[in-house]
Order: sequence, then C-alpha cells, then structure tokens
Amino acid sequence: MTLCISLAGRPSNIGTRFHNYLYDELGLNFIYKAFTTTDLPAAIGGVRALGIRGCSVSMPFKDDVIALVDRMDASAAAIDSVNTIVNDDGVLTAYNTDYLAVASLLEQHGVPADSTVMLRGSGGMAKAVAAALKDAGFSEVTVVARNEGTGRRLADLYGFDWQPGAGEAAAELLINVTPLGMAGAEEDALSFDLETVAGAQTVFDVVAFPAETPLITAARAAGKPVITGAEVIALQAAEQFVLYTGMRPSPEQVAAASEFSRA
Amino acid sequence: MTLCISLAGRPSNIGTRFHNYLYDELGLNFIYKAFTTTDLPAAIGGVRALGIRGCSVSMPFKDDVIALVDRMDASAAAIDSVNTIVNDDGVLTAYNTDYLAVASLLEQHGVPADSTVMLRGSGGMAKAVAAALKDAGFSEVTVVARNEGTGRRLADLYGFDWQPGAGEAAAELLINVTPLGMAGAEEDALSFDLETVAGAQTVFDVVAFPAETPLITAARAAGKPVITGAEVIALQAAEQFVLYTGMRPSPEQVAAASEFSRA
Repeated sequence: MTLCISLAGRPSNIGTRFHNYLYDELGLNFIYKAFTTTDLPAAIGGVRALGIRGCSVSMPFKDDVIALVDRMDASAAAIDSVNTIVNDDGVLTAYNTDYLAVASLLEQHGVPADSTVMLRGSGGMAKAVAAALKDAGFSEVTVVARNEGTGRRLADLYGFDWQPGAGEAAAELLINVTPLGMAGAEEDALSFDLETVAGAQTVFDVVAFPAETPLITAARAAGKPVITGAEVIALQAAEQFVLYTGMRPSPEQVAAASEFSRA
Repeated sequence: MTLCISLAGRPSNIGTRFHNYLYDELGLNFIYKAFTTTDLPAAIGGVRALGIRGCSVSMPFKDDVIALVDRMDASAAAIDSVNTIVNDDGVLTAYNTDYLAVASLLEQHGVPADSTVMLRGSGGMAKAVAAALKDAGFSEVTVVARNEGTGRRLADLYGFDWQPGAGEAAAELLINVTPLGMAGAEEDALSFDLETVAGAQTVFDVVAFPAETPLITAARAAGKPVITGAEVIALQAAEQFVLYTGMRPSPEQVAAASEFSRA
C-alpha cells in the first residue's frame, strides 16, 4: 500500500476525502492522510526516508519547503511556491498544481489571451494566477490591490499594471483572488461591483468556499461565463493525483470526487 | 485518523493485518502501514515530526534506534533492544514487547520459577527470553549455543551456564530460540531430541512460522504442555496495540486477529 499525505498548519479533510475517493474508485492500493508538523525539515526528511509517495503542502509551508526538496518543476519555479511534492525513490520534486490548474482552466474556458484582465489580490495564489496569465500570453493585466507594496511588486514581476481599487476600471476577464466572498467574515462582500461585472466577458473567482460566492452569483445573473474556485481546487487536486499515481481520472470522476470532498 | 507504522529491513504484512483487523474490530479511527527505510534517523525524525503514533521496529533496526528515542522503558532497557516506539506529542518512548510477551506467557502457563531450563540460541530474541527468565526468578538456566562467544556472553550476562550442544542434557523447561524448525531451509530440524522432550515438563518454541514446528509436534505427541511462537508474536503485537491505542483487546479478539494476520 502506498501512502500520500498532506502537510498544513491547519489540516483539513478535503484533500483526504478527494484522494481516497479516487483511490477507491480506481481500485488503487493507496491511502491519503492529513498531517501537521512543528518541524518541517524533519517531516520532509521523514517523507523521503519512509518512501511516502506524495506530499501536498499548504500554508504556512509553501515557501519553506523549497529548501528541502531536490528539484523544482517549472510550475513551482515559476512562482517560487510549492504545493505538491513527488517522491521518486528518495528524490523529491516540487510542483505547483494551483498554477497548472489555473493555466488549464483559462485554456479550457477558451478565454482569449488578448483579453483585458483585472486581477484582484496580491498574495501567493494571486501570484500563481498572474504567472499562469503571463505564460498563457495575457499582457493587458491590471493587478488591483489596496496594498501598494505587494500590489506593485506582483505587477512589476510580470510586466502588468497596478491600481489600488477596482471601482473605476473595466476589463473582459475579472479574477478575484482575495478572501472577499469567502465563507466567514467577508462572505457578503462582492469583489467587483455589478457595473464592472456587467461589462466583463468572463468572471473567475478563486474563492472555493462557498462555490457560489456573491461574485459568481452576480456573474451568473448577468449571463456571464464563470470559472469557480471549486473548479480550481478540484483540478489542482486532480493534477496531484496524476503526479502521485500516474493515472488520470476522467472529468466525471474528478467531479464526483470533488463533490464528495466538499460534502 | 491516527497512523501507526512498522519499520523493517524486509517489511511483512503480518503486523499490518493484525493491527488493522483490531482497529476495525474495535471501531478505532487508526490505520497501520509497513515501511522500510535506508535512512533510519530521518525515518524516526519523520515519525516524531509527523505525529505518527506508534512505530514497530524489526531487524536490522532494533539496536540502532536506541540512539534516536527520548526514553527507554524498562522492557527495552533490560535487553538494550527496541521493537516498539510510542510517540506522545513528539516524545518517543521505546519498549520491547517481545520481552513483555515472553514474561507474560511464562506466567500464564504457570511454569514454576525453580524449573531447570535449557535455552537454545544466543541471538537478540534469546536475550529477550533470557532476561524474562531472569526477571521472573529462574536461575537454573543453561544457554545452549554452538557459538561459544555469543553463547557464553549471553549466559554470563544473566548468571546462567553455557554449553555448546543440547544432546547430553535434560531440563524441565525447553526453549528453542534458533531458526531450527522454521519454514524454509531448516524446517525439518528438531531443536531438541525426542529423549530430551520426553524428559521435559514444558516445551516452548519461539519459532512462529509454522506454528506447529517439529518440536511442538513432538512435544504434543509426548503429551507435554507447549508454548508456541504464534502465541509470542500475537501477544507482543497485542501489547503494542495497547501501547498505541490505550485499549486492550479481549483474548478472543487477539486470537482472531492473530489467525487473520497469519492467513
């Protein structure tokens, strides 16, 4: 039996349920378990020494783990951030499947690369999105972030523009990568106003809980095609699954695993 | 879900089947998995950092692991050999449940401590048996071992006698701790001759595969009470189970788990 794990400051059951569901569905002799640790180097050393096949990495370990792996795949090197480690006989290769998932979704949804884009947010996931945009050929991108330091830094890194607020601008592709609309404190907040939504061609909200954020609801009401955070989280987990097992589940199996993991 | 593991040069499924059977039987949210490693310090560091609850240790790691734990229980300290590690919030305590199982079986079977004993073998498990005998008050013990160096060393350690062969001696309790009678190369070998068996009160064979060794078969034929290696392996695993989970399975549950693990 092959073990894959996750390492997170606050372990959740979502990945565990997603992966174990698909192991069962595909008849694989694998098992997935969530861990936390107060000693990341020893934990990663243990992954290597015990032959744990795969390790999903969440906050706050996505940066610190870089020093502990043997190889960086282009997906992780592009944004200096790791969310997936694959162990091949003691050699650890780091990936970032958030980046891979965002790139894949932009392509799947047929968003033209010459679209104007407003990207709201300047954290780690915003960087994955910005890099995926850049690498897919998008150039008319404005980073919207109240924090000028992080906002300008992210924009400059990819040759994009920065502005502090979303109010007075319009774009064909709107992407929210802030917690606005997330279940909890800011769940009623709309990350772009209705007029901006009305002027867009496609609306992408990276917030995954709930799947139907106020932004997604508003975009659907306005008849706009949407890309949801639930799609990102399912696709990035599916890419991890492929890396760990060498098998690609069908889109229907991914959807079923995603639904099961969120139940 | 709580993870317990085993570390062995050549991992087997026996412990995995034993523990997982009882987790299921007792409704515990635990899982058990067998590992090997080429980097014992990193593997044990991983056990600590990942919060793996328990770790069974087999050859060739039983000695080297001593330097890597935080505390030695008396059972491990008595023989400088570890087969079980319990992780309490990052503090690793080492035990030897082989020693505990042998001590318990001598008591359960009511073997009088003033019995004369012939102990055949001088390896690691023979040391566990010798220590259990010594600590239970047995003093008339002869270590039988062709290798004078290891045989004398073991005998001297506990104030016992040594002799090179079993042929010309008799004792009330016969104990075999050599591979004689084990499935494989020496499976037809009788570790004590029939005359010695006829003169004994109790016959104890630590060989666990098969459960019915030639020595056990001969002892049963001669109407002698027997203690089998299958009992040792089940009882030592049951003691691990108690240390890991805090729950004691019934003797019937242990017997069922043992049978399942050997199937």
